Amino acid sequence: MSGMVAMTLAEADALARTVLESRGLAPDHAAAVARTMVAGERDGCASHGLYRLLVAANSIERGVVVPDAVPVVSEPAAALVRVDGKGGFAQLPFERGLPLLIEKARKFGIAALALNNVVHFAALWPEVEALTDAGLVGLAFTPSHSWVAPEGGTKPVFGTNPIAFGWPRPGGHPFVFDFATSAVARGEIELHRRAGKTIPPEWGYDAEGHPSIDPKAVLDGAMRTFGGHKGSALAAMVELIAGPLIGDMTSAESMAADEGRMGSPIGGELVIAIDPAGFLGASVEDHLGRAEEMFGAITGQGARLPGSRRYVARAKSDADGVRIPAQLHQDILALLEGEMA
Amino acid sequence: MSGMVAMTLAEADALARTVLESRGLAPDHAAAVARTMVAGERDGCASHGLYRLLVAANSIERGVVVPDAVPVVSEPAAALVRVDGKGGFAQLPFERGLPLLIEKARKFGIAALALNNVVHFAALWPEVEALTDAGLVGLAFTPSHSWVAPEGGTKPVFGTNPIAFGWPRPGGHPFVFDFATSAVARGEIELHRRAGKTIPPEWGYDAEGHPSIDPKAVLDGAMRTFGGHKGSALAAMVELIAGPLIGDMTSAESMAADEGRMGSPIGGELVIAIDPAGFLGASVEDHLGRAEEMFGAITGQGARLPGSRRYVARAKSDADGVRIPAQLHQDILALLEGEMA
Repeated sequence: MSGMVAMTLAEADALARTVLESRGLAPDHAAAVARTMVAGERDGCASHGLYRLLVAANSIERGVVVPDAVPVVSEPAAALVRVDGKGGFAQLPFERGLPLLIEKARKFGIAALALNNVVHFAALWPEVEALTDAGLVGLAFTPSHSWVAPEGGTKPVFGTNPIAFGWPRPGGHPFVFDFATSAVARGEIELHRRAGKTIPPEWGYDAEGHPSIDPKAVLDGAMRTFGGHKGSALAAMVELIAGPLIGDMTSAESMAADEGRMGSPIGGELVIAIDPAGFLGASVEDHLGRAEEMFGAITGQGARLPGSRRYVARAKSDADGVRIPAQLHQDILALLEGEMA
Repeated sequence: MSGMVAMTLAEADALARTVLESRGLAPDHAAAVARTMVAGERDGCASHGLYRLLVAANSIERGVVVPDAVPVVSEPAAALVRVDGKGGFAQLPFERGLPLLIEKARKFGIAALALNNVVHFAALWPEVEALTDAGLVGLAFTPSHSWVAPEGGTKPVFGTNPIAFGWPRPGGHPFVFDFATSAVARGEIELHRRAGKTIPPEWGYDAEGHPSIDPKAVLDGAMRTFGGHKGSALAAMVELIAGPLIGDMTSAESMAADEGRMGSPIGGELVIAIDPAGFLGASVEDHLGRAEEMFGAITGQGARLPGSRRYVARAKSDADGVRIPAQLHQDILALLEGEMA
């Protein structure tokens, strides 16, 4: 079946919520997860869009996620917030912890939020954008499953370990990046496998530790980090600060806990928020203005700012809605029928 | 002249302090700067060792640095420390702010220190190691001079913009990395120029924006970031959080302020400290132990941890002292005689 199915953002949200609830996800979780998926679809990130309904349904089906988990918010230290997700998806715990994180960042100048015991399947930019929406600078980190070899080795230790950063821009979209510290997204290798294509030998190793152009061999072996030993160092940092530092799992531990169910990673996430007014007081506007000069020096020579493609897609989706492949639409509806049958 | 000159670490420290004071640097600054240079020499980082006495002398000679600046410590917010370096070298301001940063990290769980209005010529690992020595996790960032093009462009915007990270390891050396977000260190290109060697075309662009293998053309043009658009995004982050966020200069502004004196970069530095006990309470030891398992999974397959070469050099230097090229030793002594003449 070919063709595309068009829907408004409100329709996409209603569809996502209905499907998630029909699979047994509690309504507050379904609403939070749907918001993230619709944001991905809206921003042109199809791999983090409604397609993820299939991924989430799998995690629910296989018992990887607790569908009605009740997040518990606590304050382990004056400038720290913890939300124990109790095994549920990460979105609702983040929403529950966000107001306190913002309050603490404004009060102390800097603050951090740990999500613990959550199931992850989404990008991190929604988290840092929630902070830039509040006028704060944000950083977010999370391990995943151990799929990535350290530079100089060939056996998996790290997850794809994304790093996201957000900077509020007066009167415009924030400066936001969100990238895996692996050489490529794991989904990119999956896409090559499905399409029967080879991959560049720099992307990873087979199980024997040899560089391979076979996507399946690399999926079963180890991916590489981006940027050589520097990317590898950053991947290790993400493991540490969003794992043991917050009392949560490393990617290797998450992989072991999955017990072969191929579920989304389970573990923690660290979010750091800094209030520009903390160091700058009343002169925030002046200094944020100087940042604009740097952005101008980048775009003025034709270089692209991270996130800019997403904002173009967002404007279009806000006006025209989104379109998803008809086959995906059918697969999503089948989830609904499966439940109702 | 060939050959090497051997000295104990105490002798190296005394030499560095004497030279710096003879050039007019105030004794407290000279002591702090000497400590950093001797630590570099000790750890086998010759480019950040006693050689930097020549660099520091140049900055003093040309009026780039205020030799008797008195750092002023303040607390702009509960979890924030600021040290205004008043135009002096960065080392003493860091030492002055460190105790309060440590105190605040322990009290609030997370804290940040901004150094403002300081002259930079050193690596960042001494800063994060000062935090791991206190059992804290540390991050440090600083812009430099605008030498590096954003990915997708060919004109310089960013500095070499290093990122350093430190993680305390029970009973051993900390896990520390410290790397430039440029493709290579600027000094590496300088070394190729002096040796009359070409450089890989991936390192940078000439002034017309073409990839070049001529080191001088790239020094006069623009270096590239490491890791493509991801490294470029990180370089932008460093500009923002260690520039406008703390009310200090971007690399382009530092370059403009230098007015062609070829002095060390002037500007700010951001240091973030996180207390593992903040999130972990009494179970710090257990969770730091899990981090050790990750380190074991890296080294167990023959991959190297960042910083490990420095620790090998350190053990040797602690036992046997250091050796510097006789020509460098003469050039350093000439600084002393120059002053005394």
